[in-house]
Amino acid sequence: MRKILIIGAGKSTSVLVNYFQNKSIAEQLHITIADVNIAHATKLAGGHPNTSAITLDVFNQKNREDAIQRADIVVSMLPARFHIEVAKDCLKFNKSLVTASYVSPEMQALHEDVKNKGLIFMNEIGVDPGIDHMSAMQVIDRIRNQGGKVILFESFTGGLVAPESDDNLWNYKFTWNPRNVVVAGQGGAAEFLQEGTYKYIPYHKLFRRTEFLEVEGYGRFEAYANRNSLKYQKIYGLNDILTLYRGTIRRVGFSRAWNTFVQLGMTADDYVITNSEHMSYRDFINSFLAYSPTDSVELKLRHYLKIDQDDIMWDKLIELDLFNPDKKVGIPNATPAQILQKILTDKWTLEDKDKDMLVMYHKFGYEFEGKRKQIDSTMVSIGEDQTYTAMAKTVGLPVAMATLKILNKQITTTGVQIPIHEEIYTPILKELEEYGVEFHEKECEYLGYNPDGVKG
Amino acid sequence: MRKILIIGAGKSTSVLVNYFQNKSIAEQLHITIADVNIAHATKLAGGHPNTSAITLDVFNQKNREDAIQRADIVVSMLPARFHIEVAKDCLKFNKSLVTASYVSPEMQALHEDVKNKGLIFMNEIGVDPGIDHMSAMQVIDRIRNQGGKVILFESFTGGLVAPESDDNLWNYKFTWNPRNVVVAGQGGAAEFLQEGTYKYIPYHKLFRRTEFLEVEGYGRFEAYANRNSLKYQKIYGLNDILTLYRGTIRRVGFSRAWNTFVQLGMTADDYVITNSEHMSYRDFINSFLAYSPTDSVELKLRHYLKIDQDDIMWDKLIELDLFNPDKKVGIPNATPAQILQKILTDKWTLEDKDKDMLVMYHKFGYEFEGKRKQIDSTMVSIGEDQTYTAMAKTVGLPVAMATLKILNKQITTTGVQIPIHEEIYTPILKELEEYGVEFHEKECEYLGYNPDGVKG
Repeated sequence: MRKILIIGAGKSTSVLVNYFQNKSIAEQLHITIADVNIAHATKLAGGHPNTSAITLDVFNQKNREDAIQRADIVVSMLPARFHIEVAKDCLKFNKSLVTASYVSPEMQALHEDVKNKGLIFMNEIGVDPGIDHMSAMQVIDRIRNQGGKVILFESFTGGLVAPESDDNLWNYKFTWNPRNVVVAGQGGAAEFLQEGTYKYIPYHKLFRRTEFLEVEGYGRFEAYANRNSLKYQKIYGLNDILTLYRGTIRRVGFSRAWNTFVQLGMTADDYVITNSEHMSYRDFINSFLAYSPTDSVELKLRHYLKIDQDDIMWDKLIELDLFNPDKKVGIPNATPAQILQKILTDKWTLEDKDKDMLVMYHKFGYEFEGKRKQIDSTMVSIGEDQTYTAMAKTVGLPVAMATLKILNKQITTTGVQIPIHEEIYTPILKELEEYGVEFHEKECEYLGYNPDGVKG
Repeated sequence: MRKILIIGAGKSTSVLVNYFQNKSIAEQLHITIADVNIAHATKLAGGHPNTSAITLDVFNQKNREDAIQRADIVVSMLPARFHIEVAKDCLKFNKSLVTASYVSPEMQALHEDVKNKGLIFMNEIGVDPGIDHMSAMQVIDRIRNQGGKVILFESFTGGLVAPESDDNLWNYKFTWNPRNVVVAGQGGAAEFLQEGTYKYIPYHKLFRRTEFLEVEGYGRFEAYANRNSLKYQKIYGLNDILTLYRGTIRRVGFSRAWNTFVQLGMTADDYVITNSEHMSYRDFINSFLAYSPTDSVELKLRHYLKIDQDDIMWDKLIELDLFNPDKKVGIPNATPAQILQKILTDKWTLEDKDKDMLVMYHKFGYEFEGKRKQIDSTMVSIGEDQTYTAMAKTVGLPVAMATLKILNKQITTTGVQIPIHEEIYTPILKELEEYGVEFHEKECEYLGYNPDGVKG
């Protein structure tokens, strides 16, 4: 039996465990699920004969070393900041490692040592980052191999609620960490390339500079810019590219309404609201509006942000029960972002029967034989239930597949890696199709960054 | 002779030196001006018989200790972060100290030791902080002594260009550190109290939530909120106050136009613009606007921020030559704020004959014998020339006066102090009147935070 150690029994681990369990006989696998909470690990193991659950405190060195020593390969599903200790142990005991997280500078620093020992530390092999790398590089490499030159690359991903469960005015529910959604875009201007020019969008304008995307069968979406679109320019070898943009997908209208919170200052996370605990939702809103001896919170807000009474944006705010004078915040020393998260969680939590949806959209512009062309590639994955969510599938499956392929020596490039090479993306994208995670390509007219095709 | 050591021969030091020199015979003063650049110190000494100039590197401990040991009292006009080493030496050698800077936590920590040695470390005794403390506390104490209760305190200060030199559309020129003007308001929400409610304004709304102020003989001004208005609540003893607000004064219309820069993201100081050095002013503006194959930078900006062609705001932007394709930024690795500062300095630098103006406005609301009343107190100081500026006067004079009064034992409260006590503010405010720095009080109807007197 080959022994796979999975550290961290979190939300997206179920699909991963399932994948291994289903192949445990054919592939001779024994799975060990290690978590600080044994109950989580045991539940996830589900009494499967080839699966054990163990208690593991990653901060306990002996504990950690013992578990890693006994494994043939390690999967770390811990929060990103905890990977590095696991990685150092893997290096010490000659085990390869797989994670879905961004490569930290500390992780990158291990590259030469990992390589010299013939090991593979595969990172960024979830959905975003992960499937985005693989599906983008597959097309980029194909264009290059045919002699084309990539001049535009735009890539968008979003975790949303599935159409059949989409029953609120925002067309949105939390399908992942709500906190990340509330503070998304903060911490500096969004930076990207448009037709050879560097462009910058400050946070308070981010949700007003969206792009539209159309996905066949799923209708229209919008996307706002991620903070740093230029991050992968070198890694993807796109040094001469004219347009490079990465964005987050929402349903049309979300960003315009979300901008209300940004404008009011309700997403700020760098200071604490005085007396937050005993404040009502209405008091919270009112703390961002000027005092008035006569006017209602509602009218003050509408006037301040110039929202017409028949604007759907207004109905979106009402739907959240924002102006309720009786609902209490109940969190002491809370930042505005923490309070907003609470208010949104009341309304945007997936219900038992709800399904989530993962949407990815790439645009590739290129020059080939003197002509400019464009390929659009889209993927939509719908969750099956609250365990087998689209998010858990698209994160867990590529992690699992990469792990098994490393064990089976089908992936062989050593060192600290991310999935941008052909030996990785070809077999994994192919296998993902069996699980319904499939990209659809379409040749389009090249419009560059002139999507409306306006003539001067 | 009593020996006064002035460390730092900066912009606002001339008035200070002059004050001592004029009194040097009557008061038996010898003035030593110490600066890292002897030429600056010598120029400032101006060949006056009772004044010496010396070289002093504040980072050289021996240098510093020697100079301080020889003095009877020390004035530090260094940038705020350099005071602490001087302060420690003053404590060691039993010298009192005067600065115009905010009390740092390190300075505050010396309080007990300073007090035990019978010394006075007087800080925050320039204009803002300084004259604002003194003029506010004088009225607050008077209201209290008469049995009134202060329920509203709003305080505004601004360094502006004098009306006779006011010749641009912004009605503004730099009269102090331009960098502070460009990044003003950044680093967190503005927080204040309005009629008993805590209010928060995020940075990107700061310049749209101004208040108007009318100063007799000088017309209308506006003010935007300072970051933390609640800072002096305890120090001034205003614990039960309903409204507490501190702001920065500009001429009406400045903030609305300044908001253009904020909205575009041109005041950001937390990232660097790629290729800034070789960029034109026009390129700089364009980097905050979406790419267009057809539309001009001008039209894109007007459309983005919804500026009508006949809006005076537009003329303000044109006046700055913002859209010039030939003027180069010329600063490598510059932040947006640094580039904006350069563009503004081209136009907003005081010319030789220009005079500056310092405006201060306090509102005191109080309850007395069951009635609500209000006192407004204003001060306007106009500079005489480029040396004897309003800023240099209002900073330098109170520093000089406090220094002499400490020497003469007219100020006696020991420890780390700020000028909020009667023994300090009464004589200094009185003496400031001789120099034309004078407050005018006016009884008004109490409007609270309902300045338009709207009935529900």
